[in-house]
Amino acid sequence: MTGSTALLTDRYELTMVDAALQSGAAHRDSVFEAFARRLPDGRRYGIVAGTGRLLQLIADYRFGDDELEWLRTNAVVRPETLDWLADYRFSGDVWGYAEGEAYFPGSPLLTVESSFAEGVVLETLILSVLNYDASVASAASRMASVALGRPIAEMGSRRTNERSAVAAARAAYIAGFDATSNLEAGRTWGIPTMGTAAHAFTLLHDSEEQAFRAQVDAFGPGTTLLVDTYDIEKGVDLAVKVAGTGLGAVRIDSGDLPTVVQAVREQLDALGAVNTRITVTSDLDEYTIAALSGSPVDSYGVGTAVVTGSGSPAAGMVYKLVARTDDTGSWVAVAKSSAQKASVGGRKSAFRRLDSTRTAREEIVVLGDGPGGAAEDETDDASLRPLLVELMRAGEADPRFLGADGTARARAHREAVTQELPIEAFRLGRGEAVIPTTYR
Amino acid sequence: MTGSTALLTDRYELTMVDAALQSGAAHRDSVFEAFARRLPDGRRYGIVAGTGRLLQLIADYRFGDDELEWLRTNAVVRPETLDWLADYRFSGDVWGYAEGEAYFPGSPLLTVESSFAEGVVLETLILSVLNYDASVASAASRMASVALGRPIAEMGSRRTNERSAVAAARAAYIAGFDATSNLEAGRTWGIPTMGTAAHAFTLLHDSEEQAFRAQVDAFGPGTTLLVDTYDIEKGVDLAVKVAGTGLGAVRIDSGDLPTVVQAVREQLDALGAVNTRITVTSDLDEYTIAALSGSPVDSYGVGTAVVTGSGSPAAGMVYKLVARTDDTGSWVAVAKSSAQKASVGGRKSAFRRLDSTRTAREEIVVLGDGPGGAAEDETDDASLRPLLVELMRAGEADPRFLGADGTARARAHREAVTQELPIEAFRLGRGEAVIPTTYR
Repeated sequence: MTGSTALLTDRYELTMVDAALQSGAAHRDSVFEAFARRLPDGRRYGIVAGTGRLLQLIADYRFGDDELEWLRTNAVVRPETLDWLADYRFSGDVWGYAEGEAYFPGSPLLTVESSFAEGVVLETLILSVLNYDASVASAASRMASVALGRPIAEMGSRRTNERSAVAAARAAYIAGFDATSNLEAGRTWGIPTMGTAAHAFTLLHDSEEQAFRAQVDAFGPGTTLLVDTYDIEKGVDLAVKVAGTGLGAVRIDSGDLPTVVQAVREQLDALGAVNTRITVTSDLDEYTIAALSGSPVDSYGVGTAVVTGSGSPAAGMVYKLVARTDDTGSWVAVAKSSAQKASVGGRKSAFRRLDSTRTAREEIVVLGDGPGGAAEDETDDASLRPLLVELMRAGEADPRFLGADGTARARAHREAVTQELPIEAFRLGRGEAVIPTTYR
Repeated sequence: MTGSTALLTDRYELTMVDAALQSGAAHRDSVFEAFARRLPDGRRYGIVAGTGRLLQLIADYRFGDDELEWLRTNAVVRPETLDWLADYRFSGDVWGYAEGEAYFPGSPLLTVESSFAEGVVLETLILSVLNYDASVASAASRMASVALGRPIAEMGSRRTNERSAVAAARAAYIAGFDATSNLEAGRTWGIPTMGTAAHAFTLLHDSEEQAFRAQVDAFGPGTTLLVDTYDIEKGVDLAVKVAGTGLGAVRIDSGDLPTVVQAVREQLDALGAVNTRITVTSDLDEYTIAALSGSPVDSYGVGTAVVTGSGSPAAGMVYKLVARTDDTGSWVAVAKSSAQKASVGGRKSAFRRLDSTRTAREEIVVLGDGPGGAAEDETDDASLRPLLVELMRAGEADPRFLGADGTARARAHREAVTQELPIEAFRLGRGEAVIPTTYR
């Protein structure tokens, strides 16, 4: 694998640049907007994620000699266009929803202001990051809500592409998860990592008892023992026998969980292991977590469902040209009118209207204003919380949104903004967006 | 992003190594097996993909100073274990199904023979690659089949993580797609790339006519013009007016496709553009492609559905310890007996039984044999096609399976083996695996 991101791009982005450089339109000032026409199937809200990752990717986006040579050899664009690509460095402005913000249909999540050519080249990368990360975060937020404060860990790395796994761990953490099994996510994004042993560790040893002894010898009695390799009841007995009543936790990865968890709790208590926690990790999703709300579970581990967006593995975001200048430098709002895929032209700003209890009631998208340039009467209105923040200026990303600090900031923001949502937002059943989107 | 793959790993793989080094069991000879308990929901067969990518990742898997320092700082494992990781280089053997092979529930897709520690460290990476790539390939194979020989291109990069996109393009190509929009997939894996322009290119210009002229000026009349930005009928008229009757193709990205395609074909023919092709790209999946089989479509572009596995974004593969030696060096078959997650212990080989018409009838998994060491009576039987091939020996990957050549080889293999499948394999409706898996 190459580290360069330049070719993580659909060919047509470069052929459009090529043709627009030839027609002269490539340098027209342009506004591109990323938004979702609808929320993932039946969800009440979405969570923006990927922004911090994306800003770094945009700032670093360059065509190196190897990429240019490949484009030349394969005649993807004309030689003059290769020169333009060789000098490429994004120099525009980016406004958007803060990472961790809730979003709704039509919310202008990301606004890119640059020349047409500078902005169009980033389309694929922007959508790849936002579609995947927001898909994970939107699903994870529902899971975190129904976990009701019990710790919840992401452990789905093996169920998604090896690099997606790192992004998924980050998105889930932003959306309220507490830890990940993925070590690279720990290193890159400062997320707490967790994990002790799989069934293979038990099978490796000559008996379950030898395996438990080996683990307790290595990590002490505070470790988590996996008790369902053979027989759960015998496994729990053995775990307490080996580790003592100070055993940290037992993990259950199979079976009818509400029944099994209740039985294991009673068994642990009867053995005197009253402080030993129970963690469950068996194909959980938001529905099975909710079904365990009355069970004595102490923590959850979620795999497949969270890294695949729990049925909605792509968030459905699109990136559209919404305004551009003409030959006189005047701005023109533009939109396509294709059947079922019409879009709303023009620059937009956005506000969330809150009622007197600080509960969100309406997503207001204001047409015609530039990002950050909302009319006075709207920004002075305390019931309107402005949603757009400046993410990049002249190609420089705001460092507050980058790296581990930006990730922690996004997680805190998601927690604050979900507290504003109406209680109906957290219902798991299918429904409409919990607040309407209104265009002004 | 770092280029190192060492930490694309669940924490528990390293803690298991840590504890097993301490217990002394880490060096026991072991056999790990990757398999799927079932096919993605209602599918009749699956397609193995990711193998060529994976072999390179395994061969290159190393812990560098930065990774070791992070593990030390975060006390993930003991210092002695860091020394072991610093020297890590996979030195075992890997057997498995050739990339592009069809698979069924229980097929032993990948068998890793090494010490426990060497093999367990690779679990997360192996499953990430196989689960994602096989998910895409299994969906893509169905789409390629129903395309009935019409060219079909993958263009879903924007609907999956930016690095997944490259893997998805490769998996789809192996499964019978003809091209991709993803430039990195073109460079890394030698896949043909395609793409000309999006709606943004039309909106950038002062009129649709100016946009079409700009594109034809740049790429000649043989280009593909996107005709549905405003009104398809007017768009088609304009396209032929600008490019002439030698226009290469029109692309349609919206609307009720069977109706629209038929109307556009008649319109093109009436205009004299009888050789102008029609390509459609509007949220296609295997079902909508099948619904267009009677329409005058010339080629398809598929996005979201293929890169997200068309409803099954992870193939459900697991990686289990199935055999290991004891202290005397004797082999012991091992398996867990957890509810609903039981596995079958022991080394396995596998054959596909073909009838006299060379149609597949049975997946035969032979227990107890080592990979490549099948009993004479089975390998001498011409009706039994052996499925396991040697992929790595002593840590060296067979170069035939790597890079662009390996990708082309896998694509050819998929084409050959799908011709062996019973015709019922290609039905789109939900059903059981098209052949049974039998253990001997």
